[in-house]
Amino acid sequence: MERPQITLTALRDIPEVYPGDDLVQIILNGLERESLTLEDGDVVVVTQKIVSKAEGCLVDLSTVTPSPRALELAAAVGKDPRLVEVILHESRGVLRQREGVLIMETRHGWICANAGVDRSNVAGTDAEVALTLPVDPDASARRIRDGLIQATHSVAATQCVAATPRDAAAADVAVIITDSHGRAWRLATVNLAIGVAGMHPIADFRGQPDRFGYTLRVTTVARADELAAAAGMLSGQAAEGLPIIIIRGADWPRGDGTAAEMQRPVEKDLFR
Amino acid sequence: MERPQITLTALRDIPEVYPGDDLVQIILNGLERESLTLEDGDVVVVTQKIVSKAEGCLVDLSTVTPSPRALELAAAVGKDPRLVEVILHESRGVLRQREGVLIMETRHGWICANAGVDRSNVAGTDAEVALTLPVDPDASARRIRDGLIQATHSVAATQCVAATPRDAAAADVAVIITDSHGRAWRLATVNLAIGVAGMHPIADFRGQPDRFGYTLRVTTVARADELAAAAGMLSGQAAEGLPIIIIRGADWPRGDGTAAEMQRPVEKDLFR
Repeated sequence: MERPQITLTALRDIPEVYPGDDLVQIILNGLERESLTLEDGDVVVVTQKIVSKAEGCLVDLSTVTPSPRALELAAAVGKDPRLVEVILHESRGVLRQREGVLIMETRHGWICANAGVDRSNVAGTDAEVALTLPVDPDASARRIRDGLIQATHSVAATQCVAATPRDAAAADVAVIITDSHGRAWRLATVNLAIGVAGMHPIADFRGQPDRFGYTLRVTTVARADELAAAAGMLSGQAAEGLPIIIIRGADWPRGDGTAAEMQRPVEKDLFR
Repeated sequence: MERPQITLTALRDIPEVYPGDDLVQIILNGLERESLTLEDGDVVVVTQKIVSKAEGCLVDLSTVTPSPRALELAAAVGKDPRLVEVILHESRGVLRQREGVLIMETRHGWICANAGVDRSNVAGTDAEVALTLPVDPDASARRIRDGLIQATHSVAATQCVAATPRDAAAADVAVIITDSHGRAWRLATVNLAIGVAGMHPIADFRGQPDRFGYTLRVTTVARADELAAAAGMLSGQAAEGLPIIIIRGADWPRGDGTAAEMQRPVEKDLFR
């Protein structure tokens, strides 16, 4: 057995991202600055924040008129009614509310504080904005992955590097979009996957025997969340953030999956 | 800025662990087989399973007489009453129960299925045993860390390698003991920290400005859980399991902390 090893590398000097920016190009530029080339099996982990910014998921709070429901909820939990209006717009419903706390189910089905809405700022302006989650993080991940694979393809074709059809298509990478979420029962946040492409988020070991030939009992592992959490170790290390992490050497289930596959069905969820 | 990079390495060929085995020696042997030396800042991640086995946290189910409470609960959820007796013994209480499911608060304060009790087996016997969590996983982590630091010390002293007092004590490592837990709202398990030594589990960024000089809003990160989840990417990759992972290059808060610092106080927990 080759030594099992995984490497995480952060792309440095990623510029501030603005609506309309091409994240594929930003990732490719970042890779080039690090003299890195994507390899088969790599995972490109991107924080939600830059995806949302690139996709223009920004709401200027000065343009928001809170509904009666937002005014009521804002008063109950002590938050800005305009922000609560945006949060409600992003949500299917309120899971828990308490002073300063709104645990929501997002439009996508994720359970998180404030439906993932962050008060943010636009560089160089005084505008107070709300940054919302991408409309469809799985689709965002697919677009990034498609762009990366296309770019890898053309490079391989142009440079005639390993230009057999199989090798030209060799960089089968996965893309994960992460957000940092609080958890029930445990303090502080961890990075989790809210969008994936090129992979299934859950590794399924059901039916596989353990070392004594017994069938394994712990059987399904949230591999996409492990990858996201691992990337979180690096992405928070610099004050300016390191929003793009490349993970090499991890084992993940290939396929055309979605992060939504990790959502626990309501009828199997004991904590709603 | 040096390229931010983290490497995870699994120690191969870790033997089956038996009660009384010396985990420090097992880790040192594993490092030697990989020609690895612990460096300052490394994190040694160990699965709960081998810690529990080494500490003899095994209950022979044939010796267990279920209490009336265990019989009642076992009937309600359809589990082996002897196993439920062990689970109750390991628990402060039941959080949720349903056919086939027991979400417990363990003696230590962790919320997890079956109080972390696994039906297991003892190599070479037919005995049906229950493997329980270590009595005090933080203390287990401290013992392992103390042993590793002592060993590093003596090696440095003996070999006169960088034998200034400062360098002889240079391998300041953290130790994390992990268990794989299910989560509310999300399917499948992730590795989490249930014991730590040499670190605080939570990285606190409160008050630090972001790139525009605003104060960061997401402020505390469960670094020990990120490290544990990262190790989980590797430890599940082989059928026989890779119970010891070395993480190099991660940033973690040094100090004499405990994993219990991550337990959300009941009064701040909205999901009990």
